[in-house]
Amino acid sequence: MNFYILTLFPEMVEQTFHTSIMKRAAENDLISLEAVNIRDFSENKHMKVDDYPYGGGAGMVMQPGPVYSAYESIKEKAKGARVVYMTPQGKVFNQKMAEELAQEENLIFLCGHYEGIDERVLEEIVTDEVSIGDYVLTGGELPALVMMDAIGRLVPGVLNNDVSAEIESFHDNLLEYPQYTRPVTWHEKEVPSVLLSGHHGNVEKWRREKSIERTLAKRPDLLKDANLDKKEQQYLAKLKEANK
Amino acid sequence: MNFYILTLFPEMVEQTFHTSIMKRAAENDLISLEAVNIRDFSENKHMKVDDYPYGGGAGMVMQPGPVYSAYESIKEKAKGARVVYMTPQGKVFNQKMAEELAQEENLIFLCGHYEGIDERVLEEIVTDEVSIGDYVLTGGELPALVMMDAIGRLVPGVLNNDVSAEIESFHDNLLEYPQYTRPVTWHEKEVPSVLLSGHHGNVEKWRREKSIERTLAKRPDLLKDANLDKKEQQYLAKLKEANK
Repeated sequence: MNFYILTLFPEMVEQTFHTSIMKRAAENDLISLEAVNIRDFSENKHMKVDDYPYGGGAGMVMQPGPVYSAYESIKEKAKGARVVYMTPQGKVFNQKMAEELAQEENLIFLCGHYEGIDERVLEEIVTDEVSIGDYVLTGGELPALVMMDAIGRLVPGVLNNDVSAEIESFHDNLLEYPQYTRPVTWHEKEVPSVLLSGHHGNVEKWRREKSIERTLAKRPDLLKDANLDKKEQQYLAKLKEANK
Repeated sequence: MNFYILTLFPEMVEQTFHTSIMKRAAENDLISLEAVNIRDFSENKHMKVDDYPYGGGAGMVMQPGPVYSAYESIKEKAKGARVVYMTPQGKVFNQKMAEELAQEENLIFLCGHYEGIDERVLEEIVTDEVSIGDYVLTGGELPALVMMDAIGRLVPGVLNNDVSAEIESFHDNLLEYPQYTRPVTWHEKEVPSVLLSGHHGNVEKWRREKSIERTLAKRPDLLKDANLDKKEQQYLAKLKEANK
């Protein structure tokens, strides 16, 4: 999987990317990142890449030329790659989209700044407009890093433990159960004794029940698609009854 | 506004934060960031902060002691601060939450890794569980950076142009109009002539109409709360008619 990113802050993106799990993935040649500095393609001697908006208004708009030249510099290598433009106006990113994009061989991210990018170059190169949520940020770099992290961890081999990435968090449409580790007693709080029992079946049952409790409390909207057996359905019904 | 972040990757967080607009905000003493390395509070000679989960399962769980000690090291300074734990199970972050949190003087972010953090310390220190969206990431650092960016830019003085932060993107519940800058002709595409006319009223009218068109095409759910005058309502009705 090869990520390309068109940005005004290539060092920031590279440093952040090459931390933690993505660092190992890059060392193992599972994932690569190439950051292209849009400013390198400035068309004037002051290295500017933005200018005032036609029609007036505050802020600056990124010019079409440098963005397009930055794209052209990697177009051949990233053949056929989708070009994802990070914008609060885009389709909202979710786990399903991450799984879909993890199938691609090459992906290009375009990061805007200031008041945005000249519409004409967006029309010409962008294939997907994506937002990571309903909030406004100062630029597209953090959203692109978020997407690369969510997508990258789904690439086979990147997570080096036995957990497949999908087991976590949204498994069976239930939230995760609480986790405990050493010491057994901390601040006078004990680890639930079932977890120390060594009885695998009881541990599983307890964890499923905790997942159901939490999902009911925090994200009841998920429960309608949860995959519960008959006993679990009864447990859920009992919880709902007790909450009334 | 003072941000505190409890993390295993303090350098990454600091480097990323001190790029772009937040750098200037920090230099102007509008915003500060203190990253606390949870590993500095390890309770064993190998500097480990995680251990196997009780009850079995893949992955490692962060121990309660080091997380609590990291929190204690800044508790006095960050007096009364809310402690935000980044988790896919949390309340989904949005612009309204950003505006609310921008009123705080101090904010603490807690970033998990591996399979999560021992439940007992979460119960003891966390006031808010927040998710930046319905996708799974390798750690809490990027989500915390996203929140700090969205919140930080709302702090008065951080954005140094005349645009108030709210004017953008979700103004009046309409998406932004397209932006154009120099040159007038690029790849045989012209800037819309109304933007070159110098007629302020016509520019405004065109921009509002484009905003309405885009919102109808991409986020029709927003339109029901949009603030449209009579002529704009007629324009929207005409668009809907044409799309039938």
